[in-house]
Amino acid sequence: MFQISIIGLGLMGGSMGYALRGFRDCVRAGVDTDARACGEALRRGAVDRIYGSAREAVRNADLVIFCPSPRHIEQGVAELAGDFKPGSLVTELGGLKRSVAALAGRALPENVDYIGIHPMAGKETGGFGNADPALFKGTGFIITPIQRTRPESVALMRDMAGHIGAARVAEAGAGAHDAIIAYSSDLMHIASAALCMDYHPKTTRAFTAGAFRDCTRIANIDPGLWTELLTRNADEILPVLERHIQNLNAVYESLSGGDSGRLHTLLARAQINKKELDSR
Amino acid sequence: MFQISIIGLGLMGGSMGYALRGFRDCVRAGVDTDARACGEALRRGAVDRIYGSAREAVRNADLVIFCPSPRHIEQGVAELAGDFKPGSLVTELGGLKRSVAALAGRALPENVDYIGIHPMAGKETGGFGNADPALFKGTGFIITPIQRTRPESVALMRDMAGHIGAARVAEAGAGAHDAIIAYSSDLMHIASAALCMDYHPKTTRAFTAGAFRDCTRIANIDPGLWTELLTRNADEILPVLERHIQNLNAVYESLSGGDSGRLHTLLARAQINKKELDSR
Repeated sequence: MFQISIIGLGLMGGSMGYALRGFRDCVRAGVDTDARACGEALRRGAVDRIYGSAREAVRNADLVIFCPSPRHIEQGVAELAGDFKPGSLVTELGGLKRSVAALAGRALPENVDYIGIHPMAGKETGGFGNADPALFKGTGFIITPIQRTRPESVALMRDMAGHIGAARVAEAGAGAHDAIIAYSSDLMHIASAALCMDYHPKTTRAFTAGAFRDCTRIANIDPGLWTELLTRNADEILPVLERHIQNLNAVYESLSGGDSGRLHTLLARAQINKKELDSR
Repeated sequence: MFQISIIGLGLMGGSMGYALRGFRDCVRAGVDTDARACGEALRRGAVDRIYGSAREAVRNADLVIFCPSPRHIEQGVAELAGDFKPGSLVTELGGLKRSVAALAGRALPENVDYIGIHPMAGKETGGFGNADPALFKGTGFIITPIQRTRPESVALMRDMAGHIGAARVAEAGAGAHDAIIAYSSDLMHIASAALCMDYHPKTTRAFTAGAFRDCTRIANIDPGLWTELLTRNADEILPVLERHIQNLNAVYESLSGGDSGRLHTLLARAQINKKELDSR
């Protein structure tokens, strides 16, 4: 029997549990420090069994999926390095890969494989209560192998991505992953938050249409979690953010200088790039 | 019979035509320089009749609604100033109000009333082919009276907003309107476009989730139209854009200096403001 152990039954781990039902006839086991989340996950069928500790949970697992916050992922991989089942595969859903990939390559025994995965799905609100079997339907799914990752582990993750409903699967090195994410996710969150750091005091909902709604939706993020995520990827984010500020300064200059030709060029470039990005 | 004449049968004028069916038992007349749009609007029931010129269209109208681009609205109001029916009301859907309000107060005879309206609705793509009877459903609707606007004209616009399905109606002076819009709409469009002025070259759709989709949706705007809109509101936009760039610089500094306390404070302020704005 193929056993999958999910470490951390919050939004991501819980959704993964639901979505993995029926994958390779697996038994889905789960563990979480929050006993209530464990009880709920079992009762609602997100997992088939609950373990009392991560150590017990990984010992018989063919596939271990770490789903807590980035810091705790690395802590877990390091602490449990000697407990994984020989021949098993360790993966994790962290939003950043360089650091955990380096740690896994260093800390795991040779007979325990590692591969990173990053399902491009989420919600503004976490916790098992928000877990959703359809969370991964139609989304992107990035696989980040390291040098020693076995080809069959890549294939397993591609199968799993298909099973949970991911629509677009890509492979990337851990470094490339973090650099692209600095643009496609981190910068978006920074921009959205910055749009709400100040506002016109008379703004009411009569004045806000789809533009405001969409551009500021993710300003409502957990400040603690995102301080951690952004800080951990700072060296990739800084050049991207600098370039973004330069572009805004170019718009500012063209507006203040009455240079509508330059403004038109900037907006036209944005439109062309947006169409290109949506077509890839 | 209460006659409404719609000048310009593009996305906004066409949608307004559809949505006004049945309002005060009106006859809906329309005019457009594009004969094909006129034919389509009549055939599809967006208007009840078509005039061959704007002059004819306004002569018997109790309510005239100008729906072309901002520049053409002012041109139309000025050129037709002597042709409006005595006792009629002239309004327009322009996204900016100071300039047209000043012109209307100056150019219109005393027995022709003026009031500005701004339905907070739109689409990325214009033209009558995209007109939609439900475009205004559930949206914001701003009414901008000038000093001499008759109270019954304000009441008429409130009724009309209700008829076309607007959910949140606000009144504001033309100057306040343009200042708030500089934040709630113009800044959003600038930010979204700027997010696409550069991108990580390896970005593919596997890497883009809801954050990217929502934050960059309105990067796909008509560069010509928006160069005009932004240029016309430049003096209101510049201080708002400057403040936005300052906030992004604050994020940059807190990230580059490793000051996670400051970053947390910025993100927490954004979250609090976002919740406040959504509750108004």
